[in-house]
Amino acid sequence: MKALNQLTATEIVGAIADGKTTCEAVTRACLDRIAEREPRVQAWQFLDPELALKQARALDRASTRGPLHGVPVAIKDIIDTDDMPTAYGTPIHTGHRPRVDAACVAATRRAGGVIMGKTVTTEFANFHPGKTRNPFDPTRTPGGSSSGSGAAVGDSMVPLGVGTQTTASTIRPAAFNGCVGYRPTWGDLRCAGVMEAAGSLDTLGLIARSIEDVALFRDVLLGEKPQPLAGPSSKAPRVGFCRTHFWDRCDDTTKKMLEDCAAKLSRAGARVEDVTLPQDFERLPDAHRWISSFEFARNRAWEIDHHWEMISETLRKGRINDGLTCSFDKYRESRAFAERCRLKMDDLLEGYDVLLTPATAGEAPVGLNATGDASFCLIWTTMHVPAMTLPLFTGPNGLPVGAQLVAKRDADRQLFEAAQWVTRAMS
Amino acid sequence: MKALNQLTATEIVGAIADGKTTCEAVTRACLDRIAEREPRVQAWQFLDPELALKQARALDRASTRGPLHGVPVAIKDIIDTDDMPTAYGTPIHTGHRPRVDAACVAATRRAGGVIMGKTVTTEFANFHPGKTRNPFDPTRTPGGSSSGSGAAVGDSMVPLGVGTQTTASTIRPAAFNGCVGYRPTWGDLRCAGVMEAAGSLDTLGLIARSIEDVALFRDVLLGEKPQPLAGPSSKAPRVGFCRTHFWDRCDDTTKKMLEDCAAKLSRAGARVEDVTLPQDFERLPDAHRWISSFEFARNRAWEIDHHWEMISETLRKGRINDGLTCSFDKYRESRAFAERCRLKMDDLLEGYDVLLTPATAGEAPVGLNATGDASFCLIWTTMHVPAMTLPLFTGPNGLPVGAQLVAKRDADRQLFEAAQWVTRAMS
Repeated sequence: MKALNQLTATEIVGAIADGKTTCEAVTRACLDRIAEREPRVQAWQFLDPELALKQARALDRASTRGPLHGVPVAIKDIIDTDDMPTAYGTPIHTGHRPRVDAACVAATRRAGGVIMGKTVTTEFANFHPGKTRNPFDPTRTPGGSSSGSGAAVGDSMVPLGVGTQTTASTIRPAAFNGCVGYRPTWGDLRCAGVMEAAGSLDTLGLIARSIEDVALFRDVLLGEKPQPLAGPSSKAPRVGFCRTHFWDRCDDTTKKMLEDCAAKLSRAGARVEDVTLPQDFERLPDAHRWISSFEFARNRAWEIDHHWEMISETLRKGRINDGLTCSFDKYRESRAFAERCRLKMDDLLEGYDVLLTPATAGEAPVGLNATGDASFCLIWTTMHVPAMTLPLFTGPNGLPVGAQLVAKRDADRQLFEAAQWVTRAMS
Repeated sequence: MKALNQLTATEIVGAIADGKTTCEAVTRACLDRIAEREPRVQAWQFLDPELALKQARALDRASTRGPLHGVPVAIKDIIDTDDMPTAYGTPIHTGHRPRVDAACVAATRRAGGVIMGKTVTTEFANFHPGKTRNPFDPTRTPGGSSSGSGAAVGDSMVPLGVGTQTTASTIRPAAFNGCVGYRPTWGDLRCAGVMEAAGSLDTLGLIARSIEDVALFRDVLLGEKPQPLAGPSSKAPRVGFCRTHFWDRCDDTTKKMLEDCAAKLSRAGARVEDVTLPQDFERLPDAHRWISSFEFARNRAWEIDHHWEMISETLRKGRINDGLTCSFDKYRESRAFAERCRLKMDDLLEGYDVLLTPATAGEAPVGLNATGDASFCLIWTTMHVPAMTLPLFTGPNGLPVGAQLVAKRDADRQLFEAAQWVTRAMS
């Protein structure tokens, strides 16, 4: 029997329903894990054990049980909570206490989730890192910007974490911390109460330790009655193996693990074909740069005008400078280019259930002053397609490396089912 | 010479630059107008004359001058301000004081605008009205949901107002109050710090008393150096006269005024043709209903769970009930249908610079318990196209009636230039 803090959300809900444990016991086990590991990992921006236990005890007394009954959830600190501060990763907002829960937080509570605390984000969900370290090796980055949610789930402090993704901010930390990470089809999950980085790219991101948990949590956030997935026995998927234009940035071992994976899936019965992205997709990093920076700089006008000196140089000289110098015409051309690529992507994905592609260039890099290469995520982010990273590989230093699966827009559940199939085929 | 409170924003900026007046004098004139008229109109949710004057005096002392230097601006009370409360049209949030200015407020201040105060919104920018009355006839609605911004600009209390539009919330109050109203191409103007009603439809909306002012304010919000429009001497536009599927809802006088307008534009040199929308556009009101309610109900989860009894019955039994009972599949089908219609709309608009279409069914209706028919706006809102209402007509009771012009996505400036041409042709 696994320790309570190691259970998945689905297992927790089942164990509580069966009377084998309580909400309080689960929350306490997670708090114990945090107490043990937090000095090393530094995943939490705000944690009040008593507040978490209070929620858990109230759930134990409650007469109704939601689909996340008793499940502790970590919330990225750019997402508003009505009972905990939210500081958006910047000293400008230290101690800020929102009035209202973000839509995703309220939906989580409604389903019986325990809002465990707020997890570390990079500054305004951008590149300047917070204090979190990779739980597998504290000299390495946990990835960003959902750094704390990735580390907390990967280190078994909580079974579920909420992050966001504007570039690589969920898939990358999920991969670096050995988690299942999911970025939904753009527009599906409401972002009210979540700091807008660049609205035309932003989504929530879910981090878990199983595919089933991601599917469950997504249904909760959609306000749907949770529907079980078809399971790993579903039909073998049609897999496109997509190295992308950035393949040369991958470590040799990552390349080999992905190529071996493609071969293994083929042997297991999947139809696997190489897929090459259209040549002009090379320009997507540029388009992403101008779209995200134009929107970000306008969204942060208040902070720029009132607290310029409290913004990191990384952010000022990077995204903010990009955004303030980007003309509306350049922004609009970038946006139109991205939209044309999305239509091409729809066509390309007609022939496949999923693409298999790198999640990151390799293991989490050494160093805490950056969050790792974002190239392998930003294409899919800009395409608005759903993506999932699976902790299928172990790198040369013993750290987790993810395999990313991508599906066409609106095919999120098909993505999960293909991910189940792939996971079984690789096990 | 017009009184200072009757000047347009462009005229104010010019008069101050020429040393003919000061920021303080303009603000004071607007405050005087408000003091005189507010008991009757009730446009303001929050107004602190001393705070407005303090901003104006600081601008008079400033060494630099932005493109809105000294222009008083009304801000709809679903838009956050760091120095004034923001209550979103609901007693749930009375007295709430946001920490940060919304992106559009910060951009307005940066350009030298005076944030005059907060204008009345319907409850959560939905259907349940606030206290505002139509300044032309206090027994009639000012329209909604940007009720106060429409009434304040129409009644010469301020030259510029910011609203939002998810259905008809800018075009309708602008039309009912005799203003120029503009809803931009969806996605152009950042909404950070603006309450999200339904993000896939929401935009800001600008209300003014001249087309030039709208163009100026839009450039400010985009962070662009303001560019003058080509002016009314530009080329005669290709006009599609589009009665829509809702034509029968129009008053006879409104029908006649629009038909006469089409004929007059033709005589003035425009190529005018009747345009019929594709038959399946009849389903757009349904699609709009499910998209907006699905998103709205999820965004308001916190208020639903904590303050159900403080939400109006109109909202509970209407949009919230719709949203909570709408499945994700139904939502997604509606969203996909809307997207298909957008592509058809792009094709249809290839042949025209603008469509001429009703802004409302007629004059503002008598009664303060509703905000008027939204049919003539929701199509264009759902299509994500830019739209502008022009105060070209006077109805049978002497109240203003708007003519709406609509252009293809991204053709906002062409829309303004066509609107100038149309205004001159009709004068």
